[in-house]
Amino acid sequence: MQEQVLAQLAAVLGERGILSSAEDCARYVTGARYGQGRTLAVLRPDSHEQVQQIAAICAQHSMPLVLQGANTGLVAAATPDASGRIAVLSLERLKSHIEIDLDNRSVTVDAGVSLQDLNDALEPHGLCFPIDLGANPSIGGMIAANTGGARLIKYGDVRHNLLGLRAVLLDPPGAELDLLAGLRKNNTGPDLKQLFVGSSGAYGVITRAVLQVHRLPRQSATALVIPRDQDAVLEILRVLERDCGEFLSAFEGMSGAAMQAVARHIPDLGNPFAPEALPEYAVLIELTSTSDPASGIEVETLLMNALENLFGDAVQNAVVGRGKDLWRIRHAISESIRHEGKLIAFDIAMVRSALPAFRARALDLLAQRFPYIKAFDFGHWADGGCHFNLAWPADAAVAYDAAIVEQIRTALYDLVVYEFGGSFSAEHGVGPYNQQYYQRYVSQNAKQLAGKIQSMLDPQGLLGLTRFGAQ
Amino acid sequence: MQEQVLAQLAAVLGERGILSSAEDCARYVTGARYGQGRTLAVLRPDSHEQVQQIAAICAQHSMPLVLQGANTGLVAAATPDASGRIAVLSLERLKSHIEIDLDNRSVTVDAGVSLQDLNDALEPHGLCFPIDLGANPSIGGMIAANTGGARLIKYGDVRHNLLGLRAVLLDPPGAELDLLAGLRKNNTGPDLKQLFVGSSGAYGVITRAVLQVHRLPRQSATALVIPRDQDAVLEILRVLERDCGEFLSAFEGMSGAAMQAVARHIPDLGNPFAPEALPEYAVLIELTSTSDPASGIEVETLLMNALENLFGDAVQNAVVGRGKDLWRIRHAISESIRHEGKLIAFDIAMVRSALPAFRARALDLLAQRFPYIKAFDFGHWADGGCHFNLAWPADAAVAYDAAIVEQIRTALYDLVVYEFGGSFSAEHGVGPYNQQYYQRYVSQNAKQLAGKIQSMLDPQGLLGLTRFGAQ
Repeated sequence: MQEQVLAQLAAVLGERGILSSAEDCARYVTGARYGQGRTLAVLRPDSHEQVQQIAAICAQHSMPLVLQGANTGLVAAATPDASGRIAVLSLERLKSHIEIDLDNRSVTVDAGVSLQDLNDALEPHGLCFPIDLGANPSIGGMIAANTGGARLIKYGDVRHNLLGLRAVLLDPPGAELDLLAGLRKNNTGPDLKQLFVGSSGAYGVITRAVLQVHRLPRQSATALVIPRDQDAVLEILRVLERDCGEFLSAFEGMSGAAMQAVARHIPDLGNPFAPEALPEYAVLIELTSTSDPASGIEVETLLMNALENLFGDAVQNAVVGRGKDLWRIRHAISESIRHEGKLIAFDIAMVRSALPAFRARALDLLAQRFPYIKAFDFGHWADGGCHFNLAWPADAAVAYDAAIVEQIRTALYDLVVYEFGGSFSAEHGVGPYNQQYYQRYVSQNAKQLAGKIQSMLDPQGLLGLTRFGAQ
Repeated sequence: MQEQVLAQLAAVLGERGILSSAEDCARYVTGARYGQGRTLAVLRPDSHEQVQQIAAICAQHSMPLVLQGANTGLVAAATPDASGRIAVLSLERLKSHIEIDLDNRSVTVDAGVSLQDLNDALEPHGLCFPIDLGANPSIGGMIAANTGGARLIKYGDVRHNLLGLRAVLLDPPGAELDLLAGLRKNNTGPDLKQLFVGSSGAYGVITRAVLQVHRLPRQSATALVIPRDQDAVLEILRVLERDCGEFLSAFEGMSGAAMQAVARHIPDLGNPFAPEALPEYAVLIELTSTSDPASGIEVETLLMNALENLFGDAVQNAVVGRGKDLWRIRHAISESIRHEGKLIAFDIAMVRSALPAFRARALDLLAQRFPYIKAFDFGHWADGGCHFNLAWPADAAVAYDAAIVEQIRTALYDLVVYEFGGSFSAEHGVGPYNQQYYQRYVSQNAKQLAGKIQSMLDPQGLLGLTRFGAQ
């Protein structure tokens, strides 16, 4: 039976379009952070029509699929399970189309195109797709995960910049949903493309999208600011949004522990502070502008003036300039934490106003209940996102224990969701990895509705491993 | 039977909460532009819980409802039909809650609060909800219509600023969907609140929302610019987005005919041009900034410099300053057209790059087939929106004929949708008024999916008169 289906798929996809040896499939069955499985075959269509045929064949034979873009997701949503019965539908070869509309400031792009390749194509036109991430995902994957990144405060997330898409549906099997018009204003019924944004690839296969793109900045200014305390971080944010709000493109908090980890493990980074003089907390601030500095707008001057007004009160110290060095510190945090012990990563969010109280409560919770765990938190304060990452040191008083990790997760998520009304998955999505937390924290009525939509779009439950219905 | 249901509703809503005399109901059964009907009763809940009870009672007795906010919609989505069997569910009394979170830059607000009342509450804090419209709708209505307005290019539409909502569902009857967390990053499953945005009130009853709000600008600069020709409009837009993109808050095209209508009918407007010297086309440009002019940012200087660089080529002439006068001209267009004949309004959109060619084709189509019709078009070029409004003069060679109006509509919409890939309803929604065009222009697969969602959320089809399913 499976052989017959694979033969049918091979006839559609050709030799290059289907992989089945364990060696060829290896890189498709291991997730970027979590997830390890087996697969029947990797399907690699190179056209929208092939995706339609795959959907039709798989629906006909009830063969399950997981969708995969660049396999950079962090919740195992693109990884097959251990059964070996699931095929991987990789969109990596669907990448021939990149069509820029300069006057519309938009681009029509195949789902398999990578963020980097898209930006390389946009750059000669002075344009960019400015969702800034620590990976190089595919555009389809970015939509399925609704990625946010570090510059959300200026540009929004993927949803904000998605002008259109085309998807292949499982019901009717292989049907095309063409929403590629690429309009900024269009209210001709419900906006169906929203269904596919942030749904972890469970509702349909995105094959093409129209994205709003942005002018490349022609100047930027960066500062590393030491706030008086956690409340001062919000004071600084409020003043910056008032005095230079149009330019604020990043406002990233970094704990002293995170910066110390960077200093310890990547010492050549050009850290502006001596390792022994690292502050308890710092904020990386970036202003950017598309304006020529000759126009009279100088974001560095604006930033310096804004900080000067805050100096001695909300701001205790600040380094302005050296943007590349400062961003390298920020980007080196995740890697550095791995040297501190086993990573226990968090991707949470809450209203910005709750961040100081949450951080105090969370650090207190750890100190009380799990004193051997070290926190290396950092976060996107301007959008309420927080990577409250922890490490379990190899030399800790208590040896690493997966059951305790679960206790830590639940304790911290309970705090985030129940006490601060926040989110247990800010920008990584659900996927198998977060399935149990989805069940625990999402309301019964929301789960029922999301599950009904899933049953409507994928009646046989073939697409992905994420299940949105209430259990 | 109906009497029994009304008695049950009256017991829930109290005396002030239900209206049934023709006199009391009159203002609820006439739409702002289209629609005139009759109603069984107007239900006026003043709490979310009352809305839940109404939904439960109406579902139990299969009593249809239309939702109404401030009754400012332009597609009759809030107006009952002539049967007299439909009750109006007015949210106008649901307006006690306005809760501002300064640090989160957001507000939690009841659905019945008006845009003006919200902005009055925000103004003392230096904040605003900047969706700029020619009416004063309720927040719930703005979400149901996904209003855009004249400043979308800077702030986005309602969808872009919606951080959360709470809705009452018809299935299970009266169930609450609480998505009020108000987060900027949250990807814990599909974003269910998107279903209720731009769905003309057909999917559920919005009772409360969390909105991202913005800093009030502390300076603005306005110019009326005469472009060389239609292509030059896009050239000017491109240069402005490059050189002062962070500040561009409006880019509104106005045809000479529209400006002449204003000059003829509202002569005291402070028009910078003599009526006989009005240009063929003009663009109203606005830059705003939250920055203090003392900070070194002066948007008026920026605007003048940008226009100076374009002068003699893309820009033939320009008046900078006099923002209030210039906006009064823009806002007076709709009213002025009414003096020119019977209004035939259009609310279309397309990719920005298509606007010059569309306009030429549309004017040519009118000249060829309907030469007695006059065009008074104006539009939001920066977001591709266009109000291609027409008037049928009282003294036209052909007398007004509703059947010909339908021919004109279909001919122009065919051009917009089939030849330019645009939208027949940019920001007004579907509603009964656009129902036939929805059927004509939306793809079969999109209609089937939207219809399936409608059946899922409202199995008895009780909510509103808009039907999204394929017919």
